[in-house]
Amino acid sequence: MAKATKKAPLSFVFAKGVAPDPFLAGMSKDELKTMLGGKGYGIYRMACQLGLNSPAAVNLPTFHANALPGGKLTDELKDELRRQLRVLEKATGKEFGSKTNPLLVSARSGAKFSMPGMMDTILNIGMNDEIVEALVAAHPGNARFWYDSYRRLIQMVGDVVFAIAETEEGVDLFEECLDHLKEEVGVKNDAELNADHLKALIDRYKGVFARAGVEFPSDPHTQVFLASEAVFRSWNTPRAIFTRQQDGIPDDLGTAVNIQEMVFGNKSPLSGTGVFFTRDKSTGIKPHDKLDGTVLFQAQGEDVVAGVRNSEPLEILLSHPDEHMREIYNELKSTGDMLERAERNMQDTEFTIEENAAGVPILYWLQMRNGKRSALAESVIAVHLCNEGVITKEEAVHMVDPRRFEEQLFPRIPAGAKKEAELLGKGTGASPGAASGKIVFTKDEAVESHKAGEKVVLVTVMTNQNDVQGMKVSQGILTSTGTKVSHAAIMATAWGIPAVVGASCIEFGNDGGERFVGVDGKVLRRGDVITLDGSTGEIFVGELPREEPKDLKPEAQQIVDWAQGIKSLEIRANAEEAEAQVAHDRGAHGIGLFRTEHMFLGERLGDIQEVLFGGDEAQQQAALDRVFEFSKADFKSALRIMDGYGVTIRLLDAPLHEFFPQDSHLEKEENPMLGHRSVRMAIDKPEIPRNQARAVLTAAAELIKEGKDAKPEIELPLVIIESEVAVLKKVIAETAVEVHEATGVWVPYALGIMVETPAAALQGKELVEALGKPVPGVPDEAQSIKRFASFGTNDLTQTTLAISRDDADRFLPMYVNEGLFDIHPFLSLHPVVERLIRQFVKAARATDPEFEIFICGEHGGDLYTIGRLHDMGFTGSSMSPGGIYRSIIQAAHEQIDHPR
Amino acid sequence: MAKATKKAPLSFVFAKGVAPDPFLAGMSKDELKTMLGGKGYGIYRMACQLGLNSPAAVNLPTFHANALPGGKLTDELKDELRRQLRVLEKATGKEFGSKTNPLLVSARSGAKFSMPGMMDTILNIGMNDEIVEALVAAHPGNARFWYDSYRRLIQMVGDVVFAIAETEEGVDLFEECLDHLKEEVGVKNDAELNADHLKALIDRYKGVFARAGVEFPSDPHTQVFLASEAVFRSWNTPRAIFTRQQDGIPDDLGTAVNIQEMVFGNKSPLSGTGVFFTRDKSTGIKPHDKLDGTVLFQAQGEDVVAGVRNSEPLEILLSHPDEHMREIYNELKSTGDMLERAERNMQDTEFTIEENAAGVPILYWLQMRNGKRSALAESVIAVHLCNEGVITKEEAVHMVDPRRFEEQLFPRIPAGAKKEAELLGKGTGASPGAASGKIVFTKDEAVESHKAGEKVVLVTVMTNQNDVQGMKVSQGILTSTGTKVSHAAIMATAWGIPAVVGASCIEFGNDGGERFVGVDGKVLRRGDVITLDGSTGEIFVGELPREEPKDLKPEAQQIVDWAQGIKSLEIRANAEEAEAQVAHDRGAHGIGLFRTEHMFLGERLGDIQEVLFGGDEAQQQAALDRVFEFSKADFKSALRIMDGYGVTIRLLDAPLHEFFPQDSHLEKEENPMLGHRSVRMAIDKPEIPRNQARAVLTAAAELIKEGKDAKPEIELPLVIIESEVAVLKKVIAETAVEVHEATGVWVPYALGIMVETPAAALQGKELVEALGKPVPGVPDEAQSIKRFASFGTNDLTQTTLAISRDDADRFLPMYVNEGLFDIHPFLSLHPVVERLIRQFVKAARATDPEFEIFICGEHGGDLYTIGRLHDMGFTGSSMSPGGIYRSIIQAAHEQIDHPR
Repeated sequence: MAKATKKAPLSFVFAKGVAPDPFLAGMSKDELKTMLGGKGYGIYRMACQLGLNSPAAVNLPTFHANALPGGKLTDELKDELRRQLRVLEKATGKEFGSKTNPLLVSARSGAKFSMPGMMDTILNIGMNDEIVEALVAAHPGNARFWYDSYRRLIQMVGDVVFAIAETEEGVDLFEECLDHLKEEVGVKNDAELNADHLKALIDRYKGVFARAGVEFPSDPHTQVFLASEAVFRSWNTPRAIFTRQQDGIPDDLGTAVNIQEMVFGNKSPLSGTGVFFTRDKSTGIKPHDKLDGTVLFQAQGEDVVAGVRNSEPLEILLSHPDEHMREIYNELKSTGDMLERAERNMQDTEFTIEENAAGVPILYWLQMRNGKRSALAESVIAVHLCNEGVITKEEAVHMVDPRRFEEQLFPRIPAGAKKEAELLGKGTGASPGAASGKIVFTKDEAVESHKAGEKVVLVTVMTNQNDVQGMKVSQGILTSTGTKVSHAAIMATAWGIPAVVGASCIEFGNDGGERFVGVDGKVLRRGDVITLDGSTGEIFVGELPREEPKDLKPEAQQIVDWAQGIKSLEIRANAEEAEAQVAHDRGAHGIGLFRTEHMFLGERLGDIQEVLFGGDEAQQQAALDRVFEFSKADFKSALRIMDGYGVTIRLLDAPLHEFFPQDSHLEKEENPMLGHRSVRMAIDKPEIPRNQARAVLTAAAELIKEGKDAKPEIELPLVIIESEVAVLKKVIAETAVEVHEATGVWVPYALGIMVETPAAALQGKELVEALGKPVPGVPDEAQSIKRFASFGTNDLTQTTLAISRDDADRFLPMYVNEGLFDIHPFLSLHPVVERLIRQFVKAARATDPEFEIFICGEHGGDLYTIGRLHDMGFTGSSMSPGGIYRSIIQAAHEQIDHPR
Repeated sequence: MAKATKKAPLSFVFAKGVAPDPFLAGMSKDELKTMLGGKGYGIYRMACQLGLNSPAAVNLPTFHANALPGGKLTDELKDELRRQLRVLEKATGKEFGSKTNPLLVSARSGAKFSMPGMMDTILNIGMNDEIVEALVAAHPGNARFWYDSYRRLIQMVGDVVFAIAETEEGVDLFEECLDHLKEEVGVKNDAELNADHLKALIDRYKGVFARAGVEFPSDPHTQVFLASEAVFRSWNTPRAIFTRQQDGIPDDLGTAVNIQEMVFGNKSPLSGTGVFFTRDKSTGIKPHDKLDGTVLFQAQGEDVVAGVRNSEPLEILLSHPDEHMREIYNELKSTGDMLERAERNMQDTEFTIEENAAGVPILYWLQMRNGKRSALAESVIAVHLCNEGVITKEEAVHMVDPRRFEEQLFPRIPAGAKKEAELLGKGTGASPGAASGKIVFTKDEAVESHKAGEKVVLVTVMTNQNDVQGMKVSQGILTSTGTKVSHAAIMATAWGIPAVVGASCIEFGNDGGERFVGVDGKVLRRGDVITLDGSTGEIFVGELPREEPKDLKPEAQQIVDWAQGIKSLEIRANAEEAEAQVAHDRGAHGIGLFRTEHMFLGERLGDIQEVLFGGDEAQQQAALDRVFEFSKADFKSALRIMDGYGVTIRLLDAPLHEFFPQDSHLEKEENPMLGHRSVRMAIDKPEIPRNQARAVLTAAAELIKEGKDAKPEIELPLVIIESEVAVLKKVIAETAVEVHEATGVWVPYALGIMVETPAAALQGKELVEALGKPVPGVPDEAQSIKRFASFGTNDLTQTTLAISRDDADRFLPMYVNEGLFDIHPFLSLHPVVERLIRQFVKAARATDPEFEIFICGEHGGDLYTIGRLHDMGFTGSSMSPGGIYRSIIQAAHEQIDHPR
């Protein structure tokens, strides 16, 4: 806002027939919302641009909120407000402070992003004893209405402006007066009090003021000034600050104050208040026959909240005895269509009907905004609006929030089932989805039960790296401690396992050696079944039914397809043979990371152990041959599924100790993260990369013979210097010659490096050159056809920040929670890591403008990170299959927002 | 050489009275040596510039050595050589190939750096059957001499040019002929053979040629060409390449070939050969009464080597019956002084005396070069030359090699003692100095024996991080495997413990449970005493006497003092209380790293354990108070010793597990290097940094009250983000207020960060700004007065290269030995790490030009690294006290070579 603040007027008037300040012309919607707040923007649009009947208003823009000296309006701003109120008087034909035709206003907050219930509002400003008596005298039939309006003003001023409502014991003194009065009169509801009762209540309210030593301000201008200051002040209440922190809303945005002419839905039976949605917010469908929304006659917004009576569907307007109501229904309908076209989005509106002096109900538009909608409805609305010609494909894609998109596919517990189930307790929903299983308390129990074919939920105090094996085989994870950035939460999210953390309600006990958990006396033991909702944090006893949506709705699929065509980042999957098909079906254009170490599980572990630590040469060779056969089969499967797309196969990359035989006396390294692994092992034992390269290239050769377009890309992990590239490039090129000899096929293959150390990131030029240097003495056909790099941002973050992800739980949650880190570095790309990546990209592209650059760490599927990648000119991003949809959509957003 | 190669002539002639090629004018000494080689440079200087009587020569420059096509002289080069030989003929008045007055030449190698015994030489070129017979006929009295010269030529050509001397069985065929002849004649020495015998030998030598199918080239020009090619070829023999690798001499330097007129010290009794040093190479003293050197009459250089007779001191010239010899003595003396002034250094010369036709002995200068000298002599020579007005202080300092300087202080075994001792075997000298002790085989044995007050030598196959405790308490370390870059070598060097590695002669055995080592049948067991020489790699049985020099010689101290005044880098010490005095006495201007974790040893360990893992609050506070008291005492001692200089105190920096109580069930971290330590722990447990800061500032306050100039500098380890600085800056500033309240003194203190992560290195601007931002709500006097950063290059190298130093032995030696790394990254600053450091320096200094930047990793005392630091504009370097002298001298060299 810094830019606009300099020249911006101190306030704006929005009213039908009043030309809006030229300062606003040419500002974008986003800039307008930032300055005027969401409500102010809506009034401006409706009153000044769309010609709707919207009560006139003065907007004090958001930039005042944090700038008022001592929280007080300056004299200059007060003069401005007086001047603008005169403009409002002219527009409304009413007069502020008049006894015969008084202008009454509300002072409402309105920030850029809505913070429901967080900030204050004062209604009915402009009344005092004299004015109210004059109004009653002029319209004795409305006496009750006017006294009621006045006593509400007094109460709100006492509460919001002077904070004298509540005692230290938490008693609301105004409510207490009201209760006493009702008791004395012998009625139960406010509505049963008559005009005289309310007049007496006004006196008692004044008494509250007197006892607090405060005088009720009877000057209407003073009321406006005080109310404005109070609303601005409410931006910085502790609860507002807390809420913003939770929602990630910056403190410096500020709130606007809107001084708006009052209209009264509670004025008479022909008055009312309502809401109207242009489409169904749950299904996304636009109703053909009836409008979506409700209305409540003779009521104000706060009465709807109080729930005195139930609101009624809008169709009631059609059957209302007063035929003007039918016109209002039709006006809602046609205006809804107009608003959608104007705002290019589904709208959520608030309106008031006020009976005018001639006895005719008049429709006033109080608020309009893009309507909130369910994750399911979002794609439907977007695709339908596009199909109706309201918005473009790009706008449709942009309308869909990638953060929620995949919720459609998470297992869900139907609301009905939850109502009938026994809720054990609640923690923090840390990894969305629903899961049921038998309780186990340790990693070993989890593995054991899993082997026995049981579905389990791991219940423990917290998890660490040693629990990984048990976590992976669990349906769900429940911890009594931790937050969304703890090990359990991060890992579960990465693997798509539902998890609830920080469930402090559960306590661990030990009953003669047998462990159990207890909640409120309820005891659960190993084998008892529970169900977790990882979205809400709920924990239920027993197995609850779950809905597991399998495919996307057609509209959602349409969004993905459109996004696919828009984005410029290539989206790939981190997947081995097993997940390749899912990844392909979700729209991944290739595999960005095939982790070859994952193939050495189960029986196969023995083979790689024999290669690494085995007996004589013949035994090692036999083991190598077995590894070759099953590797080739796995590679072939992935290459076949990704026909026509690149498949990046990373050479063996694991700390050596993960392959130690069980009875090994070999010593684990002090810091295995920084130890003898990856290319270091490949250079030490070149028979391993040679065997892997042979399996990849042979698999591709066989597919090429079948007429397939196999595109293998071989990747070297943990590179730190050019010489490593040179050594392994030679091994692979020589292997290409061997494969040609064996199969008769020259396989075109790409060669790349993982950039996962600062050393590599700092040497873009040198490493790109090393990748490009042909291996001497090898024919052209055996050289790699393409070179690339892929950032391994897990390791790069670990080394750049010197934080071991496996150990980070000892302090990283504290850093994140206490704000030392703005951003969790293993969830979203840390700016310092980005700084390093930029250096590589710049140097690499200066060396070779066509050089392909990817990312394949967990960050690859993080939406913030995707924005950074797009900005840095990455070729593509690769992530676990669970993140492909959202990444495709986010990449399209980036291209729309910042075309490249 | 690329620059000069382009325009350089193909060869040069250096001869008295011949104007040198103008191409050489204006070239620096270094450039000349690079192009002409050391010997060529010497001849050029002596013959062309200093007017000495030096045999004329043609120099074929070094750039030919690697450029001859197929190792052969081109026709162009042959024509050039023919032309230049004609110039030589003119200069000498002799004629190549003449029978009456033949020009005879030698072909000698001469590279920039001398590689004694590595390359080939051929003498007496220009003889053949006809010439030799003509010479004998003309001077029958010299018949033996001429035949002997000719047979030597034939032998050298056979050996060096045609490589037909040696059979596959290793028999030298020429030597065999000679031996047979001597046997037949019945003599023992070559000298006893007469002219006829030698003439017969020539025929037998020709027979060797015939049997090899090779003809001896009798054309003198052909001889020169073949000899030149052979000498050039000798640059690239495997042993020459290996030697260069060992000495760090680049392969592309090449050797020159010098074709020099022969003079014959073996011609007659009035001929001879000798060496003359301008100063004593062992003591550095310039003798007042007698010249240093030797002479051998009627001999050539090779006879001296053969040791037929002993050389005699130069004074023999004074008592020689031929009075010309006295003149020669005086000529040596006066020329020596002249040479020292010309070369600005002590000279090592070779000369020959040849009786001329008139029977007068003539002095010829064959070679001059800067004389090699002992480490002890080096400073003496430099200081004396300076005091004599020959060189400046800067030149004197520059003359002293910092790499050897500290050898003066290493314990030494006197040569005499070694002769009498039993040499067990030899390994690689990996950490210099001599050590004796009882053999132990394991870390635990070492610790145990050390506790029992015994001096031990740890003997093992190899060491790793787990052995550190045992290594530190050992007098010496001996391993049967490993190289200079293995764990044992690096650690021992860092700690100054003598070590011998790679002693493959020793074998480990087990004798009924008792371990032993065996060498050639000799068995040594635990408790047997051995002595190591870590400089030479020798292993002796028993305890040998050792000399342990304590102080520097006055001249050496003078060099340090001069260097101190010249250098611009500030040299500090990594030292705690115990080593501070030594560091100060050696010239350290402050402490660059006081590791506070080192104070928690022995009994004190319990106190810090109580703070970290202890009982209730009162117990923890009591422990904190105890820690405060002893910390304060340690800090005060260091600050007092370094009165007036900065003392950088690093806040507690160790992986948490190092403080685990022995019976702890706490789990060690997966990668403690990247774990919960340093500032992370300080932020987690702020009572620790608060307590440390209080101890530092209180110690300083007490000293200030005594009138001392205490300069405490508090340092935050492992910083990665600004917010860490902000949090701890606040803690420290608040502590300064408390200390002021308690002592009445405002202590001026500096605040800095360790830069040991890529994250920190990438954020020079942000971190310098964070250090400079005043803590709000704290008086000015409590703010830090200065800000600084110190690079912890151990950790920075570990994180940048993703190499754990503790684990690096599994692959790093392989990387270094196979040339994947040019440089051992934990010994010398790796270029990629330097790249990162440069980014910090640039950003930091752009933010604050006065910002002080240090280094305190092990690299701080590495001489190569000091050059980089000087170049980068570092403020200073800090290293273990053992490296202070060499660092001061190196820093002075840098300032002399590249003033800043």
